[in-house]
Amino acid sequence: MSDFTKKCIKLKEASYLLSTVPTKYKNDALNLVIESLKRNSSYILSENERDIKIAKENGTKSSLIDRLALNESRMQGMIDGVNTIIDLKDPIWRSNDVWTTETGLTISRMTVPLGVIGIIYESRPNVTVDAFALALKSGNCILLRGSSLAVHSNRALVGAIKEGLKQSEISEEVIQLIDDSDRELVREMLTSNEYIDVIIPRGGPELIRFVVDNATVPTIETGAGNCHTYVDDSANFEDAVNIVINAKTQRPGVCNACETVLIHENMAGDILPRLYDELKDKVVLRGCPKTREIIDVREATDDDWAEEYLDNILAIKVVSDVQEAVDHIQKYGTGHSEAIVTENFTNANYFLRKVDAAAVYVNASTRFTDGGEFGFGGEMGISTQKIHARGPMGINELVTIKYTIVGNGQIRE
Amino acid sequence: MSDFTKKCIKLKEASYLLSTVPTKYKNDALNLVIESLKRNSSYILSENERDIKIAKENGTKSSLIDRLALNESRMQGMIDGVNTIIDLKDPIWRSNDVWTTETGLTISRMTVPLGVIGIIYESRPNVTVDAFALALKSGNCILLRGSSLAVHSNRALVGAIKEGLKQSEISEEVIQLIDDSDRELVREMLTSNEYIDVIIPRGGPELIRFVVDNATVPTIETGAGNCHTYVDDSANFEDAVNIVINAKTQRPGVCNACETVLIHENMAGDILPRLYDELKDKVVLRGCPKTREIIDVREATDDDWAEEYLDNILAIKVVSDVQEAVDHIQKYGTGHSEAIVTENFTNANYFLRKVDAAAVYVNASTRFTDGGEFGFGGEMGISTQKIHARGPMGINELVTIKYTIVGNGQIRE
Repeated sequence: MSDFTKKCIKLKEASYLLSTVPTKYKNDALNLVIESLKRNSSYILSENERDIKIAKENGTKSSLIDRLALNESRMQGMIDGVNTIIDLKDPIWRSNDVWTTETGLTISRMTVPLGVIGIIYESRPNVTVDAFALALKSGNCILLRGSSLAVHSNRALVGAIKEGLKQSEISEEVIQLIDDSDRELVREMLTSNEYIDVIIPRGGPELIRFVVDNATVPTIETGAGNCHTYVDDSANFEDAVNIVINAKTQRPGVCNACETVLIHENMAGDILPRLYDELKDKVVLRGCPKTREIIDVREATDDDWAEEYLDNILAIKVVSDVQEAVDHIQKYGTGHSEAIVTENFTNANYFLRKVDAAAVYVNASTRFTDGGEFGFGGEMGISTQKIHARGPMGINELVTIKYTIVGNGQIRE
Repeated sequence: MSDFTKKCIKLKEASYLLSTVPTKYKNDALNLVIESLKRNSSYILSENERDIKIAKENGTKSSLIDRLALNESRMQGMIDGVNTIIDLKDPIWRSNDVWTTETGLTISRMTVPLGVIGIIYESRPNVTVDAFALALKSGNCILLRGSSLAVHSNRALVGAIKEGLKQSEISEEVIQLIDDSDRELVREMLTSNEYIDVIIPRGGPELIRFVVDNATVPTIETGAGNCHTYVDDSANFEDAVNIVINAKTQRPGVCNACETVLIHENMAGDILPRLYDELKDKVVLRGCPKTREIIDVREATDDDWAEEYLDNILAIKVVSDVQEAVDHIQKYGTGHSEAIVTENFTNANYFLRKVDAAAVYVNASTRFTDGGEFGFGGEMGISTQKIHARGPMGINELVTIKYTIVGNGQIRE
């Protein structure tokens, strides 16, 4: 039996016990994990330095090394995250849907854990701790497949987590790490329907494509964000400027950053010169022909409308009304986060109803699409598919349901 | 462009409009479809006869022909089903979860349609009408891939549905049928992520395996039901006898029928002779060694515990307590429907909490796992997977969510 199969069997067994443990046991275990992370922090940081040294030697690009790096403050951030999760209401064995049928059966739609969650992720080591804590609080076991880049950091973090669990009422087997860089092992994970209930890939389009193409285990796709901000002709001018700048520049490399701004033709003459002034030194602007009549930018092509830049580049298109804006989003958007800036009530509602995306905003930056900002106390990723979960996935999305049916001898006629 | 792709594009376009139509338009359309089904009923029945004639000529087995056959009463059953769906509350653009964040954003978790639902099903033509009506009521378009056995019936039914839709405010393009028996077309359907939001296979294990193995579109598995009934030592004797007989014999060929009965050792001596008397003429019994000490039945092997007979066969095992019963179900069950018959409160609760299945019963027959019996007004299938939906899928499971976020100029710090 392979090491991988052994880990799967341990997870499945542990999940059977974990599914019904009292909340207190789970919270106590998370507190013991926090203590262990603190106790082991210098070891974790030194193992992280080892990963960084290897990455630098291999010429890994600096943005990736930045994502990989831990420090005191990032360690504290992880611990704060676990504390937030401890404070959340246990999502398991709850119902807001109980009814009695004509035959007198009382049916309750109860929340239960999914069971075993697999996560395949890239270099950020804090995902290791976040994913574990979210899974445990929702009664799920977790199989982590991190990046080979972060192998020492992840081993140290999982070691510390297991050390904490050993002192608790929860089995240390609820978390398993596979840090093998072997793609065949990922393929095995993706087809282990017997052991794994859902797989969540977090990473670039290539990883997500590989997972979706090869998985027989149900997956939740955390996909691309080609996000738009539409500035209506009735928009508050300063709000529009601030929201566009924030959505584009506050953190351009993330999925909820704005990639294309759509501007009502009556607003274009006023706002485009202002946006040009504010953005020209840090953002490359690309515009449609009407945009280029007003400001001096490179021409945007069809490829620009479709691209998720994840960079300091912004495409600009002038549109004739909210309907054209919505149609453009329908055609090019990826269903992640879309915003309208408007003072017109009907246009706001039209946009909210018609745009088909996980998060649709009126008068706010798309950058808020995030489990933390939504008040979920963290997230397992942001789903861009429609089944099971859509948008930021917190502990309430890491559940399934069970119908309990109580009768007094009913049989079916 | 293939005929299949053209149909997909029509569905996608139609789904964009359908997602926000008022409930009245949907209900009016369903009423017009009922009128059209009535108007076309003799044509539908004659086309169904054509299918049956061909099936008989090809030596199709009688149970399959029975599933394929329509008659006046089954036509009325379909129409009654649509009427029930008309009476259901529209599941779209509802929320029981609205909150305001620290930054003053008001977030609403709204229900929206999935978009385009694909369904791959076997011979029963009533599924064509049920699936269409459930999809339409929940604002979804539907791509139907029926069995080649039912090709003329399905064409006639879809023709009648489209005739009804033409008189309504809803586009007739919301329903598309592919009745080609070409497996390659199914393969294309399973990978049309651009057009189809979810695929639901309904049928035997071979079909479901093929779909799960080949789909990149998210699927909802409607799997096997190896269902158990556990008779506790505290059970009411007559209830236990009635429930076991009903769960096994009321309709043995369906997924919620009981396949194994587990009996507490203190109950075995009393109940086994009675079950033997009641069942021996119509059901083949197979038992564990302890069972065979009490009644004269064939020996049950490990294969019996694992098999979904879908037939007049029942496996019987004597167990020492509720925990052994739950462990057996954990090992051999398929997570469909499981029942305990008991008067002991603690054992009932233990069973309800610990058994990991879509539907868990106390003192009732497993045969109630059904959208109609649950009060859902029909079902798109019974999910045995954990993500998105579990158990009978009615219109409330045919939705996804959209977060609407309303601010007044918020940007992320």
